[in-house]
Amino acid sequence: MAKQDRAIRTRQSILEAAAVVFDERGYDAATITEILARAEVTKGALYFHFASKEELALAVIDAQLPAIPEPGERPVLSKMQELVDMGLIFAHRLLQDPLLRGSVRLTLEHGGTSLHRSTPFIGWTDLSTQVLVEGKERGEVLPHVVPSDTAELIVGAYAGINTMSQVVNQRADLERRAIVLYEHLMPSVAVPSVLARLDISPGRGARALAEIEKARVDSAEADATRLVTPAGV
Amino acid sequence: MAKQDRAIRTRQSILEAAAVVFDERGYDAATITEILARAEVTKGALYFHFASKEELALAVIDAQLPAIPEPGERPVLSKMQELVDMGLIFAHRLLQDPLLRGSVRLTLEHGGTSLHRSTPFIGWTDLSTQVLVEGKERGEVLPHVVPSDTAELIVGAYAGINTMSQVVNQRADLERRAIVLYEHLMPSVAVPSVLARLDISPGRGARALAEIEKARVDSAEADATRLVTPAGV
Repeated sequence: MAKQDRAIRTRQSILEAAAVVFDERGYDAATITEILARAEVTKGALYFHFASKEELALAVIDAQLPAIPEPGERPVLSKMQELVDMGLIFAHRLLQDPLLRGSVRLTLEHGGTSLHRSTPFIGWTDLSTQVLVEGKERGEVLPHVVPSDTAELIVGAYAGINTMSQVVNQRADLERRAIVLYEHLMPSVAVPSVLARLDISPGRGARALAEIEKARVDSAEADATRLVTPAGV
Repeated sequence: MAKQDRAIRTRQSILEAAAVVFDERGYDAATITEILARAEVTKGALYFHFASKEELALAVIDAQLPAIPEPGERPVLSKMQELVDMGLIFAHRLLQDPLLRGSVRLTLEHGGTSLHRSTPFIGWTDLSTQVLVEGKERGEVLPHVVPSDTAELIVGAYAGINTMSQVVNQRADLERRAIVLYEHLMPSVAVPSVLARLDISPGRGARALAEIEKARVDSAEADATRLVTPAGV
């Protein structure tokens, strides 16, 4: 393994260990000692990548948005399906990925410090606004909808059902709560013909993720084929 | 002032001081010393009322639900207006009452400990479910609505817009966010004739609270009149 690959892997294991500790203890109670023990790296290695607990926390927070595929990364039935998929994919991934859970906890709790927790809220809102604006251009969105207002509402409401699901039953019912959210909201957002075709059913997050992975493989294969085909053929 | 009144006032000032400290620092970082200094009471007085920081925190958390008038405490246009008013009154009171802000922060953050934070979520959900069930009996609610699902969604979503508003601009826009929430949700909950009569406009929280206070005064005056009127007249 090249030196650079090793550094990337070390950084990633520190990040994942930190996320687990932040998720379990919260920012204030988490210690570098505990993160070191869990990551099984030396103090030197940790401080090579992250100067402080705060820097680690910010890196964990930043890991949240890349968990969602970029809009337009795959063919979708509608922009409104893309909007719903963002939330359902995130619900699905959150149950599997401790890095995301750590990120979410840091975002939703302010603790004793002044971490910049607004970044993910703003990032999610911008992404959702973009999808709603594109949906509006395609005629998928009801005329009275203000994309930035609806986007902020979805992001805020989603954060809340996430917290509540975590408090009440350790996120066991997060997907169901997300489905109830979209079932209530989307009739006030999407035009009826788009609404009738939306998939908000259980398992949609996992299915959408599989579709995206298939699209990525297909596109990589297509690229590879182009590379081995002589030019002009 | 009677001894008992003094004890009630002391308890209340400790509770309010604790709420401010919890709101500023979070549960983990808050100290009894700081709460004592702010409440201007002796250690003995504090421990007479509350055995520990945890007991104080639980009492602050419990202060949340009584902030909302009991359903049926005043004449309302509709049960759906009562449902909306719960959220708009709470938004209004949250900006004025540090005790509520402390309670909300403790509810939404789990910190290093295992405080029972689910109580307010369950309390709000039960209250909202009750209003939706009554609304359903009166024909105000769309047929497909499951009261407990919709109640849980409203409570979770509300908690989230509260957190987001706090993170992004110290709750300056909480009322606006609550209005956007109800504008999006209520068309999926209330029948059109009830929907058309809902007041979800700015200032509704303050107006509803004034209505309730007027109803209380009127009812107290009516009681007083009955008391001074000789029986049989």
